[in-house]
Amino acid sequence: MRPARREEVPVIVALLADDKLGAQREDLREPLPQAYYDAFDAIVASPDNEMLVAEIEGEIVGCLQLTFIPGLSRRGALRGQIESVRVSAAHRGSGFGRVMFEWAIERCREKGCQTVQLTADKSRADAHRFYESLGFVSSHEGMKLTF
Amino acid sequence: MRPARREEVPVIVALLADDKLGAQREDLREPLPQAYYDAFDAIVASPDNEMLVAEIEGEIVGCLQLTFIPGLSRRGALRGQIESVRVSAAHRGSGFGRVMFEWAIERCREKGCQTVQLTADKSRADAHRFYESLGFVSSHEGMKLTF
Repeated sequence: MRPARREEVPVIVALLADDKLGAQREDLREPLPQAYYDAFDAIVASPDNEMLVAEIEGEIVGCLQLTFIPGLSRRGALRGQIESVRVSAAHRGSGFGRVMFEWAIERCREKGCQTVQLTADKSRADAHRFYESLGFVSSHEGMKLTF
Repeated sequence: MRPARREEVPVIVALLADDKLGAQREDLREPLPQAYYDAFDAIVASPDNEMLVAEIEGEIVGCLQLTFIPGLSRRGALRGQIESVRVSAAHRGSGFGRVMFEWAIERCREKGCQTVQLTADKSRADAHRFYESLGFVSSHEGMKLTF
């Protein structure tokens, strides 16, 4: 696991799109829409965000984003938030997602987080079981308003 | 609604604690634990976070935190996230929470967010109905791992 590089944005977006929900959300035309590069630059510029990729033998096989959120709640606890998680189709079911998550959780602990949080689409029942096996508790409703 | 000031941290923490879940989570001893001030300083230092208070005639009657999260998903969409929402007991049920939320949603729109997201504890059924009335859809499981 290491920070993503700007030239890897197309590979990451292809990973995000390689999924039943992601396929409807992403735009893979070439050249890739500038909005993706602008978003990548904003992530790199933010001290609170890390876009990470998993590399095996020179190939990017997974990605996730970490956001560290300071807050007053829970005695001033720092929270780690995980978004945009994908493992390439060829590496799914191989325990590889677990290695990525254990790494991400450890990274949050190292940064001083007291909580790690994520939301998972309600249709992803297998993802819920996976997150529960890592110690996540499904205690909240994840609510979204889209403009 | 305006950014919170450092000397208002005790008032905000008292608001956070004035709630059945918050009461178990916060530590109101005097002086307030330094961790709260450290967290406040981290929020102010972060370009991606805003701690806001609602003031009526010189009195702080509500608070919420906004976090702006850049990301590659959904065509490089910026997300607005709302946390640590409270309205003082004296002002609950008066439509005041709605005014605060409409303000917060408009602030997210103004910043260029394409989505506004929050998680709500599953035990807060009235909060879910309130968020749905504002246009939020309960599409995700909100999962948390606490160290």
